[in-house]
Amino acid sequence: MGQNLTQKIIASHLAAGDLNESHEIALRIDQTLTQDATGTMAYLQFEAMNLARVRTECSVSYIDHNTLQTGFENADDHAFLQSAAARFGTYFSRPGNGICHQVHLERFAKPGKTLLGSDSHTPTAGGMGMLAIGAGGLDVAVAMGGGPFYLPNPKVLCVWLTGKLSDWVSAKDIILEVLRSLSVKGGVGKIIEYAGPGVKTLTVPERATITNMGAELGASSSIFPSDEQTLRFLEAQGRAEDWVPLTADEDASYDETLEIDLSRLVPMIAQPHSPDNVVPVSEIAGKPVDQVAIGSCTNSSYQDLMRVSQILKGKHVHPKVSLVISPGSRQVLTMLADNGALTDLLDSGARLLESTCGPCIGMGQSPISKAVSVRTFNRNFMGRSGTQDASVFLAGPEVAAACALTGSLTDPRTLDLPPAIEMPREFRIDDSMILPPGDPETPIQRGPNIQPLPLAPKLEDNLSLPIVLKLGNNITTDDIMPAGSKILPLRSNIPAISEFVFHKIDPQFAARAKSFKQSAIVAGHNYGQGSSREHAALAPMYLGLRVVLAQSFARIHRANLINFGILPLTFVHEEDLARLQPETVLNFTGLHQAIRSSEPFALTLNNDPNPIWVKHDLSERQANILLAGGLLNATKAAANSEAKYSTVI
Amino acid sequence: MGQNLTQKIIASHLAAGDLNESHEIALRIDQTLTQDATGTMAYLQFEAMNLARVRTECSVSYIDHNTLQTGFENADDHAFLQSAAARFGTYFSRPGNGICHQVHLERFAKPGKTLLGSDSHTPTAGGMGMLAIGAGGLDVAVAMGGGPFYLPNPKVLCVWLTGKLSDWVSAKDIILEVLRSLSVKGGVGKIIEYAGPGVKTLTVPERATITNMGAELGASSSIFPSDEQTLRFLEAQGRAEDWVPLTADEDASYDETLEIDLSRLVPMIAQPHSPDNVVPVSEIAGKPVDQVAIGSCTNSSYQDLMRVSQILKGKHVHPKVSLVISPGSRQVLTMLADNGALTDLLDSGARLLESTCGPCIGMGQSPISKAVSVRTFNRNFMGRSGTQDASVFLAGPEVAAACALTGSLTDPRTLDLPPAIEMPREFRIDDSMILPPGDPETPIQRGPNIQPLPLAPKLEDNLSLPIVLKLGNNITTDDIMPAGSKILPLRSNIPAISEFVFHKIDPQFAARAKSFKQSAIVAGHNYGQGSSREHAALAPMYLGLRVVLAQSFARIHRANLINFGILPLTFVHEEDLARLQPETVLNFTGLHQAIRSSEPFALTLNNDPNPIWVKHDLSERQANILLAGGLLNATKAAANSEAKYSTVI
Repeated sequence: MGQNLTQKIIASHLAAGDLNESHEIALRIDQTLTQDATGTMAYLQFEAMNLARVRTECSVSYIDHNTLQTGFENADDHAFLQSAAARFGTYFSRPGNGICHQVHLERFAKPGKTLLGSDSHTPTAGGMGMLAIGAGGLDVAVAMGGGPFYLPNPKVLCVWLTGKLSDWVSAKDIILEVLRSLSVKGGVGKIIEYAGPGVKTLTVPERATITNMGAELGASSSIFPSDEQTLRFLEAQGRAEDWVPLTADEDASYDETLEIDLSRLVPMIAQPHSPDNVVPVSEIAGKPVDQVAIGSCTNSSYQDLMRVSQILKGKHVHPKVSLVISPGSRQVLTMLADNGALTDLLDSGARLLESTCGPCIGMGQSPISKAVSVRTFNRNFMGRSGTQDASVFLAGPEVAAACALTGSLTDPRTLDLPPAIEMPREFRIDDSMILPPGDPETPIQRGPNIQPLPLAPKLEDNLSLPIVLKLGNNITTDDIMPAGSKILPLRSNIPAISEFVFHKIDPQFAARAKSFKQSAIVAGHNYGQGSSREHAALAPMYLGLRVVLAQSFARIHRANLINFGILPLTFVHEEDLARLQPETVLNFTGLHQAIRSSEPFALTLNNDPNPIWVKHDLSERQANILLAGGLLNATKAAANSEAKYSTVI
Repeated sequence: MGQNLTQKIIASHLAAGDLNESHEIALRIDQTLTQDATGTMAYLQFEAMNLARVRTECSVSYIDHNTLQTGFENADDHAFLQSAAARFGTYFSRPGNGICHQVHLERFAKPGKTLLGSDSHTPTAGGMGMLAIGAGGLDVAVAMGGGPFYLPNPKVLCVWLTGKLSDWVSAKDIILEVLRSLSVKGGVGKIIEYAGPGVKTLTVPERATITNMGAELGASSSIFPSDEQTLRFLEAQGRAEDWVPLTADEDASYDETLEIDLSRLVPMIAQPHSPDNVVPVSEIAGKPVDQVAIGSCTNSSYQDLMRVSQILKGKHVHPKVSLVISPGSRQVLTMLADNGALTDLLDSGARLLESTCGPCIGMGQSPISKAVSVRTFNRNFMGRSGTQDASVFLAGPEVAAACALTGSLTDPRTLDLPPAIEMPREFRIDDSMILPPGDPETPIQRGPNIQPLPLAPKLEDNLSLPIVLKLGNNITTDDIMPAGSKILPLRSNIPAISEFVFHKIDPQFAARAKSFKQSAIVAGHNYGQGSSREHAALAPMYLGLRVVLAQSFARIHRANLINFGILPLTFVHEEDLARLQPETVLNFTGLHQAIRSSEPFALTLNNDPNPIWVKHDLSERQANILLAGGLLNATKAAANSEAKYSTVI
């Protein structure tokens, strides 16, 4: 039987495990990327491994998150990352050069390769036919060091595309339809592979919009074939030599299939406060809009912004709407400037922001109180915009532009002429803001915001852990470790940032957790969805969190918990969650043996004679990491015992 | 005897007083401007006066300061200002349209008119031959209501220009030379009038750079004649009809004269931490530079940025330098985009920021710890950049561009070819982001960040005031009421912002002042220099400040103190400052009579048998304001007694 595309790339990169049998597999990683909000930790961790240079084919350190610089912290982090990139042999994309995923797609992504990135939207590069996976910074640091990346052996879900998009309907509507169908948990444990005759109608940037937002499905990755469209994009980027053809075999099989007829899709929108709360725009049209934000790694390509520019040209943004645009890269921005589209956008009344993540991560442009904000972004979690009571809607560029013009939620099909944008035959290529690997003797520049890495303590064999917080379903890493312009600058300072853990849900969390010394959290399903930030594990660990007992976990966050020595447990009987309350004490006896075993085990409660049965589903490798007190401790211990580095991790 | 230019404009706008005799005069105000950091207060104050519409020829409300929007507060303020502009009949320049002074120069400034602005750099419009003065928001609110503006009868200092600037030397070097000659106190009580054969060699934007930074001299205003250059600029802006010729009479006299031969000037730079700490760049060349910031109301015109673009074209910014550019207006930005200069800047590695004040007010782009930052701005007070230990240098665009290329302080004359930029014959005109006055029934939009105005209590006749803080010379309004991205969003929320009064000098100030209930501050010379922010009076008033006893005051801040009911006193014997220490109690007896009288009076100390003699130098009008508990109380009292509004103020 033939292989699907995912199986082909995995097979050619398999470092451990068996695709047909293993619970967990390991992949050789060809490329890595980091960004500045997660990168400082990743490089501190790489530094702690005492390796001279990265061992990947290509590693890139991007600056795109913390670019407002409202204090010295961001600039200090950037200087640290620039010096670390030079010393350790990675490319360094300077602030202003663009959003990591957009620039990586333009200049580095290659079909058939693997990419591990310390950002949950790393699968954007799946639009290029590469297997691109988001992970915590520590996993990326290990991959930079040449270590393989471990993940649960994924199921492959095929999204079978037929037909062709109608006017005013865009790639964003495809992924919104997938989210509507599958929900934010629909991709957990899976790789989403796009196939079918509809694939060839989509350009690489359109595919990247779709694979990008596969992150919101909880998927491990999303991937498109490498075909004529891929070649055309690489040719236009002056990189035809990077092309290889790559598709699933004709007789490939999949674990599941979802069919979508592109010709039947209509303009969609995700309502607050979840990316899967999707309806056709027409169903909620007319609601007044206060802000429209266009950009982010999801929708800021040349084609996206050209479409917006065509829609807005010669018209004016509604006087009540603040329209902000962040081009995805300097390539996009200069092409818009050169062909007049930038002036069309500015003439319409758009505010031009830097080519960075910007408002998508709450880094500026927080809307007014109780705002309705329409964004071409990927997440609309409550409060992520920086305005707690704002209602954020997610849509494609055409919908966003239509809303900007009318001042209300608008189905763009009610406008005149649809935009018609061809993929350029040649993109404007200028890599002068990407600094190549530098001198291995470059000293690391370490300003006062760069604090030493805290290490996890080893888990004790017998533990009594009070529940410091009880939570519901779909808790995001934004809930656990908020981002935004005030907190992101502290990403390289764990003692400082840990004060903000769960701050929006419970401002007393940090103080209470510290007073408990060691503690546990209990939660519902899909705990830790959202971004890849390992700070959502590292900072709680610093505050004494030792166990999270949840009905289920999001993949990246579960891996991060293990990496930082926090035990992720699930219920044998999910309904037992109801028996647990804040400050209930969970008593563990013989925990080390329980971690080594794959059997369910019991824990007792201080206020209930019946035990609770729990399980952990850890691989042997993960169990070893936990028993060592986290991955960095495990790596250091292995180094001290002179075992070969790559065999341990 | 003939009149100088200043006398001519004052004579045609005199509302009270006598130019030859009065201690204080009053001017009719033709135009006003506000920006968002001071505008919310100004419009709250205007609203408190219960007037339906503004009574000026033209009032403009600009959004240019608080544009990062790291929380809901800024957007709420913008919505409030937009609704207030519509209701009260002012123009509203939307965020993204540009910096107030640049846009006002382009689109509104008129020779021979008066302009009052709630921003200390309002004299920028003096480059157009108008008498443009910075003031507190309350004074501007009164002017919007048709009331005259009172100021001490100014002396006129003539700066007599001869010759012509050499290559690589710019308008910024002229004003830096004036600052070097006169110091930051050199303009106090004066209007600086530029004359002489060198004037005609300078374009309007160059003149505006000079009058802009007259604020750093402490001058009440700075002004250039209206001549052929003025006509050419207005023609290019499509406003030839706004031109009138206006120059000093041949036989005009001045109180003082400073001569400058333009041909002898060299590239200059102001060293930390004062704009008058000026030396030729060549004297300190070679010092490594971390950041270069180009923009601000001082140096972000089309010509300025074209020069930078010519210097950088085809070259690359030094890898250690972060170069950030904020164009002065959307006009400038779109012209650069259309002629390719924007792409040249981006190709060189510049980061493009929004067309706002940006880093000049610490609104983002804080440099790294211990940075050397070269800026084309107007102020380099310690900490204003957002990085407390940064060293900020002020220079012209040519010097800034040269430093960006070399990575060190550089005399641009060491580069190849000097830039050669002609004034465009036609600027690109698009006023679609300037909303015209709207419906008088427009409801005011008041988000949770818009808090009610606090009113000053009346000064008691007998007062014992402990000294809550003793300060040295040249205390700035940045020291008193810090700006920056964290504090500026609280400008319409006095209870919240007052917690930050003197925060950089003494973090305990707010708590101590509140514990004292009522208190006094003592200080050296030039107390309150810098920006016009009335929050530097209003917030301390809210904390209980009743008296400031200083060796001398900056003009705008002294007026703000009076407006908010705080008594500004000076020493009869300056050396008495040494007798005063923190917590020394100042005892006032019969203060009401002392305020009414123009005689010096004595106050006693709790720890010293000898009294201290002090004086106030208040006009009768100012005395009445203080006795009423500030200008707003005085205005309200007058309204209640049915006196005609404009006769009181």
